[in-house]
Amino acid sequence: MMQTMKGLWLEDLRITYRTDLPIPKPRAGEALIRTRLAGICATDLEMTRGYYPFTGVPGHEFVGDVVEAPGFEGWIGQRVVGEINLICGQCEACRAGRKTHCTNRRALGIQGVDGVLAEYFTLPLANLHPVPGEITDEAAVFTEPLAAALEILQQVHIQPEMKVLVVGAGRLGLLIAQVLKLIGCDLAVVVRREAQTQLLSRWGIPAVDERTLAKGAADLVVEATGSPAGFALAREALRPAGTLVLKSTFAGDVSLNLSALVVDEIRLVGSRCGPFAPALRLLAAGLIDTQSLVSEHFTLAQGVEAFERAAKRGVLKVLVAGE
Amino acid sequence: MMQTMKGLWLEDLRITYRTDLPIPKPRAGEALIRTRLAGICATDLEMTRGYYPFTGVPGHEFVGDVVEAPGFEGWIGQRVVGEINLICGQCEACRAGRKTHCTNRRALGIQGVDGVLAEYFTLPLANLHPVPGEITDEAAVFTEPLAAALEILQQVHIQPEMKVLVVGAGRLGLLIAQVLKLIGCDLAVVVRREAQTQLLSRWGIPAVDERTLAKGAADLVVEATGSPAGFALAREALRPAGTLVLKSTFAGDVSLNLSALVVDEIRLVGSRCGPFAPALRLLAAGLIDTQSLVSEHFTLAQGVEAFERAAKRGVLKVLVAGE
Repeated sequence: MMQTMKGLWLEDLRITYRTDLPIPKPRAGEALIRTRLAGICATDLEMTRGYYPFTGVPGHEFVGDVVEAPGFEGWIGQRVVGEINLICGQCEACRAGRKTHCTNRRALGIQGVDGVLAEYFTLPLANLHPVPGEITDEAAVFTEPLAAALEILQQVHIQPEMKVLVVGAGRLGLLIAQVLKLIGCDLAVVVRREAQTQLLSRWGIPAVDERTLAKGAADLVVEATGSPAGFALAREALRPAGTLVLKSTFAGDVSLNLSALVVDEIRLVGSRCGPFAPALRLLAAGLIDTQSLVSEHFTLAQGVEAFERAAKRGVLKVLVAGE
Repeated sequence: MMQTMKGLWLEDLRITYRTDLPIPKPRAGEALIRTRLAGICATDLEMTRGYYPFTGVPGHEFVGDVVEAPGFEGWIGQRVVGEINLICGQCEACRAGRKTHCTNRRALGIQGVDGVLAEYFTLPLANLHPVPGEITDEAAVFTEPLAAALEILQQVHIQPEMKVLVVGAGRLGLLIAQVLKLIGCDLAVVVRREAQTQLLSRWGIPAVDERTLAKGAADLVVEATGSPAGFALAREALRPAGTLVLKSTFAGDVSLNLSALVVDEIRLVGSRCGPFAPALRLLAAGLIDTQSLVSEHFTLAQGVEAFERAAKRGVLKVLVAGE
């Protein structure tokens, strides 16, 4: 008799709560993981709007316990976080070490493999990182988005003397701002709500209003809104020969003056998944305030409501307990 | 009585040959230069199509002789080439050393100051570089576009193991290809005409047809066509986490899928004017074949015809003698 579990299910752009999902079977080299806590991010929300054609269990931000690990039983009982790209190891990108760009990749809860918004899921052991005891579940669940923020530092050399601007103070923008603050750079964040200003002020980060933003002044701008208006604002704030990091995906094409990029020698850098180990180091050191980013807690059975809340303006991280 | 000179004049998008142009007077810190040889480039042609709203003597690629230099007479008789941006030295970009991005800049024969397609012109002494004796006039006149090609190496670290593609085998594309060849990288150039293939073959550079171009394979692509079709081709040839250098200006906006840039972590780098000293070093060392790039010679009196020829497909560098 097949064992079943509780979990969320995405099909035809609709999230449902189900109690009849089959518990997946880990293969050699994989772990079966019991979800302790999962987060909902913008990508999950965009999947419910048709951004990716995914059917299955959604979710990719998690902290969980390894409950099975065929052939590698030493992992059992380990509390872990995990990288979300399942790779082939054989393609040119994999062989060159650019694993997050594997040509044949699947992505946890996004593409080709069920995600973490259920009691159990599987992931290759190669993707797992043990979580140090000093990091709480509520902090550890931020490892994946924090790694995505750190990817900016992997790609671009940001100097402490630079004038840096983050456009967008949502879930990701606020993590990015905290990471950039640690470099000592001259940082500001474009906000739209008083609550964002207050949160940033707690961290000693200046908030600026887009209407009073200096034009052509920032050495580096991070676009974290995913809206064409946010991109236009970021472009305007950037100085000639500056760098614009694109950290959010955009629905549809954006019209761009490429000549101006050439004349101003602008650098546009797309940025996606990042490194887990430094993210865990920052969390263990207590250098990132994740607690202020948690808006609400839900259970799996309240998962539909959790998605609705996460989609509301002004709501930051919505967490879902795995049991 | 004002002395007059011969020269070309651009007004209302039309080039005329005139014999009544006033000889400019150099101010302190400026040189009066007699044009030995001038080149016509894509920017000059685009000005006749309304790309820049310029009225005056066009032309910015030159080699000439200093004939006056008030207060700095040691320069007189020196054969020189010169950087084209006239800067204020006071703005934030100037103070930060990003002189080609001076907020108040004028550009020789392009914006705010008469250019080199006349018997005489002026330029600040700070812009001048003496030309070593071993460089012929016909080679020295390529210093400015060669510097623009070298700007790519100033901006991007190109490694010898990289697979590099140049899209476009026109005047600038062929200079860029020769510069990249010197790094030892795995280089190819997208061509459209048999003459381009033959020229590249003389330099040992493989030519590829866009119809058989490998997709997602190049580590770095240089776009040197300035056409949206060329940009699309360049984007398609680039691998994930690769770099796309934009080396030509585009008329109008281009529609761009920014999400794909984010997911593939693409780096777009706009590139304009470059460093003269290394360009002169490469020319002095005989490492750049400029001779094969010269299509035709004209006199100033034949200047209108020279512009017409330069605009023809397949015509490479058109040179105009200053006397």
